[in-house]
Amino acid sequence: MNKHVVLLPGDGIGKEVMESARLVLEAVAERNGHHFTFEEKLIGGAAIDEMGDPLPRETVEAAEEADAVLLGAVGGPSWDHLPGSGRPEQGLLGIRKQLGLFANLRPVKGFRQLLHASPLKKEVVEGSDLLIVRELTGGLYFGEPQERSEDGEGVVDTLSYSRKEIERIVEQGFESARKRRKQLTSVDKANVLESSRMWREIVEEKRADYPDVKVDHMLVDAAAMKLVTDPTYFDVVVTENMFGDILSDEASVLTGSLGLLPSASLREDGTGLYEPVHGSAPDIAGEDKANPLAMILSAAMMLKHSFHMEKEAEHIEKAVQEVLDAGYHTADLSVVNGTELGCTDLTRKVIEQITSED
Amino acid sequence: MNKHVVLLPGDGIGKEVMESARLVLEAVAERNGHHFTFEEKLIGGAAIDEMGDPLPRETVEAAEEADAVLLGAVGGPSWDHLPGSGRPEQGLLGIRKQLGLFANLRPVKGFRQLLHASPLKKEVVEGSDLLIVRELTGGLYFGEPQERSEDGEGVVDTLSYSRKEIERIVEQGFESARKRRKQLTSVDKANVLESSRMWREIVEEKRADYPDVKVDHMLVDAAAMKLVTDPTYFDVVVTENMFGDILSDEASVLTGSLGLLPSASLREDGTGLYEPVHGSAPDIAGEDKANPLAMILSAAMMLKHSFHMEKEAEHIEKAVQEVLDAGYHTADLSVVNGTELGCTDLTRKVIEQITSED
Ligand SMILES: CC(C)[C@H](C(=O)O)[C@@H](O)C(=O)O
Ligand SMILES: CC(C)[C@H](C(=O)O)[C@@H](O)C(=O)O
Repeated sequence: MNKHVVLLPGDGIGKEVMESARLVLEAVAERNGHHFTFEEKLIGGAAIDEMGDPLPRETVEAAEEADAVLLGAVGGPSWDHLPGSGRPEQGLLGIRKQLGLFANLRPVKGFRQLLHASPLKKEVVEGSDLLIVRELTGGLYFGEPQERSEDGEGVVDTLSYSRKEIERIVEQGFESARKRRKQLTSVDKANVLESSRMWREIVEEKRADYPDVKVDHMLVDAAAMKLVTDPTYFDVVVTENMFGDILSDEASVLTGSLGLLPSASLREDGTGLYEPVHGSAPDIAGEDKANPLAMILSAAMMLKHSFHMEKEAEHIEKAVQEVLDAGYHTADLSVVNGTELGCTDLTRKVIEQITSED
Repeated sequence: MNKHVVLLPGDGIGKEVMESARLVLEAVAERNGHHFTFEEKLIGGAAIDEMGDPLPRETVEAAEEADAVLLGAVGGPSWDHLPGSGRPEQGLLGIRKQLGLFANLRPVKGFRQLLHASPLKKEVVEGSDLLIVRELTGGLYFGEPQERSEDGEGVVDTLSYSRKEIERIVEQGFESARKRRKQLTSVDKANVLESSRMWREIVEEKRADYPDVKVDHMLVDAAAMKLVTDPTYFDVVVTENMFGDILSDEASVLTGSLGLLPSASLREDGTGLYEPVHGSAPDIAGEDKANPLAMILSAAMMLKHSFHMEKEAEHIEKAVQEVLDAGYHTADLSVVNGTELGCTDLTRKVIEQITSED
């Protein structure tokens, strides 16, 4: 298959880990007779520096044309002094909205080698394997009005959703659950918010279409507790944008594997943007110390979700697992009796695995 | 001193633990020459059953007249079928709003005897001692509009704050920090919300008045992570209503001491409402199994914050600590080599300690 991928390395270690993902994808293409073309564009701080805009128009245009987009990371101290609307994160929020990336999928899985780095007790966290499906283009993030009153004495943000926006993310939650352990937890704050009451109704309507999926409703405060006390309870969690932001970050630190977590942001036609959960780590940028695995696993999610290359995605996941099994890791991970490598060498190990797998 | 306290036992175990708090307060009064009068009123499900209203007017009126209010717990399965506006929780939301209880103080401290019940590793959680100061009468909870569109295709909730509302809770955060380890973490989502940007500005304005307090700003998603990975980082956290709801519940499970956590909800004149963090536990109601300690510690917070009886509050806290040190506990707590008691007997142990302390 021929696929065209737009690469948005962004800032900090984004550039290095993107190079790793590209090399891995080329190895996969080679092995499986695919042809991937790559086109690099600017976003975030790098785009501010070169073009005065965290999300240049040509970046959006290229992304619109692509079969999928990979993103490294955005932000860093060089741009922290900028006012809200000109900051690197605006590139991220902007591309989500402009491409219509309404569904953010954040799998959280514990890698055996890293479980000892979890803040949780082994018996609490062991076996955790959950997926947070977060609504990404609605709610408090984009609702209008979002403004101060004229006299500056009041301020308002707006949490707004259309029925259709809730329906499509809830469907995504059910579809994801169906492909996994068939348990969907819908998280809301229905005892306070009208939007949550509508959300809950829509989940109840949709469940008739997914009789194979077990559903429960949980209040967001209870979910924030249960993620810590009983993370293995969860299979798929579906929730609105801000709750998803908070809960997915909370979930990301549970297994000690933050440096390994990928994410997908999908739009209705199946194209998507894939990025690691970690940030741009400006302190180690350019030193060949970055951990490329979350970016590489994000590329695997791209193969699976946008290109329907399930087998190729599994090759990558298996290669990463085997490299970890062999004890190889970057400096950010503490692996007992492991061998520390730089970003380039660790990437090479993953590629060797992919090339040698049968 | 003479003080008049309104008791709102509410539902489930609320009645039992309230009786414990009353007995403890009488012992304290006796010992210290105070005179407390008590008046019991209905709230929540109990009020729905008797008066058809989760917050009867006479309850609010009595609370308005009181020097402070103690609340047990509200809610339970008998009222789960009711529509939103008639549910027990509305009693809670209503009394907060009507009394102007704008500041919710939720201390989280690990009791040594219970640390083993924490989901976190000992080395992560040991030494945690934080206070969440949550705004309680504004934000998404009470903002208007909160409604569906006429055609039912859209829904909106509103996060609104006035400058004054933010100022007074931020001041409460600084004041609380000043009385503790002098470190204030203000939590917001300033990269997305206008209300958070105003919040952050106000924190920056106020810090000039509190040069002795160290301040940092943290995004809510980062705070949700850091509470799990590094809870000892925090001293006082100040945040808006919904973020505070989520983070304080997340924090409450960190130390294994959920059954022991009190809370205070204060208004500007210093009167307040005090309640345990735990719920109404309908499954064990009426069986003399309830753990009264969180309610008793809430009464101690009342003595401290509303009556300025610091010494008396410490007597109670010390008594609770000593009862735990002696190994006494209720069935919900797993204390190694402890002695399990019912609610009545554990309360008696606390009172014995108070009476015998010197
Ligand atoms: C950078 C920020 C605006 C963003 C968000 O809140 O969505 C980030 O936290 C994320 O989760 O991707
Ligand atoms: C019952 C509910 C409305 C309430 C809240 O969200 O404030 C509760 O969760 C709390 O934190 O006291």
